[in-house]
Amino acid sequence: MPYILIQITKENVSQQQKQQLIQEATELVVRVLDKDPATTFVLIDEVDTDNWGVAGESVTTLRQKQAKSTVHQVE
Amino acid sequence: MPYILIQITKENVSQQQKQQLIQEATELVVRVLDKDPATTFVLIDEVDTDNWGVAGESVTTLRQKQAKSTVHQVE
Amino acid sequence: MPYILIQITKENVSQQQKQQLIQEATELVVRVLDKDPATTFVLIDEVDTDNWGVAGESVTTLRQKQAKSTVHQVE
Amino acid sequence: MPYILIQITKENVSQQQKQQLIQEATELVVRVLDKDPATTFVLIDEVDTDNWGVAGESVTTLRQKQAKSTVHQVE
Amino acid sequence: MPYILIQITKENVSQQQKQQLIQEATELVVRVLDKDPATTFVLIDEVDTDNWGVAGESVTTLRQKQAKSTVHQVE
Amino acid sequence: MPYILIQITKENVSQQQKQQLIQEATELVVRVLDKDPATTFVLIDEVDTDNWGVAGESVTTLRQKQAKSTVHQVE
Repeated sequence: MPYILIQITKENVSQQQKQQLIQEATELVVRVLDKDPATTFVLIDEVDTDNWGVAGESVTTLRQKQAKSTVHQVE
Repeated sequence: MPYILIQITKENVSQQQKQQLIQEATELVVRVLDKDPATTFVLIDEVDTDNWGVAGESVTTLRQKQAKSTVHQVE
Repeated sequence: MPYILIQITKENVSQQQKQQLIQEATELVVRVLDKDPATTFVLIDEVDTDNWGVAGESVTTLRQKQAKSTVHQVE
Repeated sequence: MPYILIQITKENVSQQQKQQLIQEATELVVRVLDKDPATTFVLIDEVDTDNWGVAGESVTTLRQKQAKSTVHQVE
Repeated sequence: MPYILIQITKENVSQQQKQQLIQEATELVVRVLDKDPATTFVLIDEVDTDNWGVAGESVTTLRQKQAKSTVHQVE
Repeated sequence: MPYILIQITKENVSQQQKQQLIQEATELVVRVLDKDPATTFVLIDEVDTDNWGVAGESVTTLRQKQAKSTVHQVE
């Protein structure tokens, strides 16, 4: 019966990583709550980085800042 | 006031089917709960089959297995 | 596979009404999308009227205004 | 800790508008609930107008009706 | 950044099981997607069995049927 | 048309604070996106601190740790 929603930013998550998330999230509720895997849903929602905000800024902006600060460290 | 979210896999649902889901889901809460259709939302979320897992596998994988088992029955 | 979430205000919905919502919402996706009822989830989320806002006001406030306007009509 | 989900129809919302929604929604919970912006998520979900129903009709249909009624007013 | 929602029926899940779900769901996205645990949310939503339907019936009804069939097996 | 969901921990949020969240979240989408407040939903979901995890721990545990560290600072 469990419904598990995993929301992540849309940043090149591979099909294999998705399969691993689905498999291990299902195993988690089977092991911890003795649920039936046949009626366990795992949904992965990939959200555009423009559409996800943390600390008042979009992830797009945060990633740009992170990239700049990494460049300064290299120079 | 009702908000109805219908999550389904993204498998070629037609505009007409969507209109039917919207119409009949609205009628359901109007009939059963006497709600005002003017403030009844119905949202349809189509989820990629890679991003929906059941019984620990993605629907993409499940559909492939279903297709194979159908082929064997025909041979 | 469908997951249907029905959010409504917490205003004395009976067990029988809930069963009717579950049954008919399931029938809707079976009939329109040919889905398997065995893996169709219907969840009903009852939200406190203080916690649901429309037009900038809580439903608690709206209901109070509706009650007053009905009284004036009777006087 | 807050998680804020803003669902809107997919009708050309600019990156700038999204940034403003993220910023001001974060400020709202910081100001009203004294929350930490660093762990405040704001997600914007843009839903296709075919997939959003109000009053039993899709927003696509409603927009077409609105456009027609505006034309009649001009003639 | 991940947001993980785990919806389960309200059937006496212990505080310890909840902690285990939170811990292991967080570890899952850290291990598979290299996410920062400090900004990983895990929410557990416990839904009343009257409010969760599968195959057109509430879980309350399904549990009653399961209990009866178990009694018949014992007699 | 907007649907805004605000999920927060259940930590004594007053009716007045909820009204302020509803009012200002509605004003935000009216101002930024020119939406109609009459069909703008704002839902507040208060989640038990046992049921909300951050950095792999429940908020209940985090609050206990915060309380202890504050006590040490006072001694």
